[in-house]
Amino acid sequence: MVDPAASSHHSTAFLTDMYELTMLDAAFKDGTAERRCTFEVFARRLADGRRYGVLAGTQRVLDAICHFRFTEEQLDSADFLSERAKDYLRNYRFSGQIDGYREGEIYFPYSPLMTVRGTFAECVILETVILSILNSDSAVASAASRMVTAAEGRPIMEMGSRRANERAAVSAARAAYIAGFSSTSNMEASLRYGIPSSGTAAHAWMLLHVDDEGKPDEVAAFRSQVASLGADTTLLVDTFDITQGVKNALAVAGPKLGAVRIDSGDLGIVSRQVRKQLDDAGAIDTRIIVSSDLDEFVIAGLRGDPVDSFGVGTSVVTGSGSPTAGMVYKLVEVEGHPVAKRSSGKVTFGGTKSALRAYRASGVAVAELIHPAGVEIPRKKSLTYREMVIPLVRDGNIVEDLNDLEQTRDYLDAARRTLPWEGLALSRDEPAIPSRFVGFPEPSE
Amino acid sequence: MVDPAASSHHSTAFLTDMYELTMLDAAFKDGTAERRCTFEVFARRLADGRRYGVLAGTQRVLDAICHFRFTEEQLDSADFLSERAKDYLRNYRFSGQIDGYREGEIYFPYSPLMTVRGTFAECVILETVILSILNSDSAVASAASRMVTAAEGRPIMEMGSRRANERAAVSAARAAYIAGFSSTSNMEASLRYGIPSSGTAAHAWMLLHVDDEGKPDEVAAFRSQVASLGADTTLLVDTFDITQGVKNALAVAGPKLGAVRIDSGDLGIVSRQVRKQLDDAGAIDTRIIVSSDLDEFVIAGLRGDPVDSFGVGTSVVTGSGSPTAGMVYKLVEVEGHPVAKRSSGKVTFGGTKSALRAYRASGVAVAELIHPAGVEIPRKKSLTYREMVIPLVRDGNIVEDLNDLEQTRDYLDAARRTLPWEGLALSRDEPAIPSRFVGFPEPSE
Repeated sequence: MVDPAASSHHSTAFLTDMYELTMLDAAFKDGTAERRCTFEVFARRLADGRRYGVLAGTQRVLDAICHFRFTEEQLDSADFLSERAKDYLRNYRFSGQIDGYREGEIYFPYSPLMTVRGTFAECVILETVILSILNSDSAVASAASRMVTAAEGRPIMEMGSRRANERAAVSAARAAYIAGFSSTSNMEASLRYGIPSSGTAAHAWMLLHVDDEGKPDEVAAFRSQVASLGADTTLLVDTFDITQGVKNALAVAGPKLGAVRIDSGDLGIVSRQVRKQLDDAGAIDTRIIVSSDLDEFVIAGLRGDPVDSFGVGTSVVTGSGSPTAGMVYKLVEVEGHPVAKRSSGKVTFGGTKSALRAYRASGVAVAELIHPAGVEIPRKKSLTYREMVIPLVRDGNIVEDLNDLEQTRDYLDAARRTLPWEGLALSRDEPAIPSRFVGFPEPSE
Repeated sequence: MVDPAASSHHSTAFLTDMYELTMLDAAFKDGTAERRCTFEVFARRLADGRRYGVLAGTQRVLDAICHFRFTEEQLDSADFLSERAKDYLRNYRFSGQIDGYREGEIYFPYSPLMTVRGTFAECVILETVILSILNSDSAVASAASRMVTAAEGRPIMEMGSRRANERAAVSAARAAYIAGFSSTSNMEASLRYGIPSSGTAAHAWMLLHVDDEGKPDEVAAFRSQVASLGADTTLLVDTFDITQGVKNALAVAGPKLGAVRIDSGDLGIVSRQVRKQLDDAGAIDTRIIVSSDLDEFVIAGLRGDPVDSFGVGTSVVTGSGSPTAGMVYKLVEVEGHPVAKRSSGKVTFGGTKSALRAYRASGVAVAELIHPAGVEIPRKKSLTYREMVIPLVRDGNIVEDLNDLEQTRDYLDAARRTLPWEGLALSRDEPAIPSRFVGFPEPSE
């Protein structure tokens, strides 16, 4: 495991809620800090009637745990802590075990997405950073995945950076790429994660090209862009009049023009008109890219229209109405004893858990079976089963590098194909497969 | 202006969409890169039928512009750029002018929130980072402000870090504090911005305290917390049975117990029951803190209930249904010529703008008057007027340090008091005051 020099700019240790530190301090005082605990990350429900969730952020969590080192500045500022607690934090290294679903995995309610085992002290203070990452990344990936299936193979460019916190935008681009987006506009995401970058031009580019009297000169803007980027570029044709814009674009770039982008109007109608105009001019290979507040529903509505690719911004980085995945980090086991809060209306089985996903012979998933870890549960001969939980960290060390985004993308793509067909529907309904608790004792009351 | 050493961890230069760089490159090639331009940040509408927006993030934008320095690693990776563009970026320092609304100001549709003037090249590449910050911070502040008025003076603790990207959580805490939240659970926000930190205890703390047989021991958990933090602490009483929890809390801490927290159930009913139980036991000063998926509407619904303070998480960090503020960064002037995209249904006046807010003698705001910069508009004797736009950056240097969060909080608090009373309503409606364009030429077609 990388052991980076602790610096307040790299440190993730203060991406933490105060109560984790006060609980840790109190636990040292009463002798419970070293109790062996299991914390579990799961979501009680899927967002907004969706059929499945996509887990993203797992590898970022592991990286954040590597950088979970307290700086002296941080410790100095935490004046409510005892010296003993500060000493512990000064030398903090997570040394426990983490198991979980692979990043890019599809999940359902109560899937044990990440299980963190160790002392109470070492596990409790990871709560916030783990949840921050998984909740935000999974919200984006879950929304993006629906857009990808709605697009039916047509590429989607992620261009939502301006609608998200500046650093969250980078993670959002990563999550969208995992979900199957083809590229990102975000330079940092491209540099840090190797995601293909892409971009077209803004209306500002068109408006910059005014003549001496201040009149817009669309032809000059197109000509300059083609001179700089070649005829294979994408020209933005809706700044003034779309039909004239397409005409100007073709006059400048010729029929080998790469693409035109339409960022306003009724995209279905306009794309059909523009397609006809392009074809009539012999530009049969010139693609049509649309943007303008697209989400999975608008994309689905354009299925029959001659749109070649999509640019999606706001809706993907904000999780298309569900900007957080609602995952929680719950203490489920203390010194081998299952524990759970008493809650009306919430399923609460304590104990460390694992899960199997059951499939028909056809490869279609039929159920998520959540069971106590280490307990064999009955299997039907007619079904096949897959262990969902894999080791991620052992004794503080990352077990296996699963940080290859291309592999994670492919993994999700394959997982999506195992959903029952109605699981890809966009309408609100129950999860695509049921989550079942198997092998737990009956509740005593 | 601070000139920090460029490092890829501090640099904000790649929090940028690729097309800004390709446009810049093309502009150098066609000679338009040095054209004098004005870009304007504004929002065409308020989110979700709200009555006003709260601008937040201005000071973070200025800081990001200070750190807008390209590293060699970044430039190397941008292999699509010409050497000339790379040279320009290598030496990039924003040297232009920025004007805008003060951070913490209330805004309305088309308020010219930030105006960036300089060459096309130096202004165009700031688009993404400016919008990322203002859109996300203002979304949080706008939602938080409604919660603050709904709470009618009762303090609200921000505790939503786990529901937001790990770095966005820090900015969200800052924005919520500007809007009037009393504290944050986020340690980094407390350290970086001096926001008061606060916290209670988690259900994990209660469940950690099992006896040798694995049975929960609520009394032991309370006792330990009081031993560590004193009787003035906040005990979480809803892990098992709330009535018994309150009884146990009082047995351990006595009537000087600081507070109890309730994180589940029907908070109105439960808070009344708990208040009676506390009062009957003589704990008349023990406060009741509620949490559990609160938003402005739930808070308003608890107006008549004996709740002393609120803990708000998900809804505030996600903008309570509107996670981004929808601001745009538009080129409005080139070499002194007003420019605008032709749009149906969108008001599009080009040119650099300024704004006055008009008030009745009573101090109540009546209109937002948006006018061409430098043009005097007619004023009524019965109204008073305030210039909304102040200088923020001159020749690349920050004009005045407005980074004091306490002042910004107070500023917003005062601004809120100038809204017509219906402007504080939570229901969906038109903006509290109308935005009017004054002094512009009539559209020619």
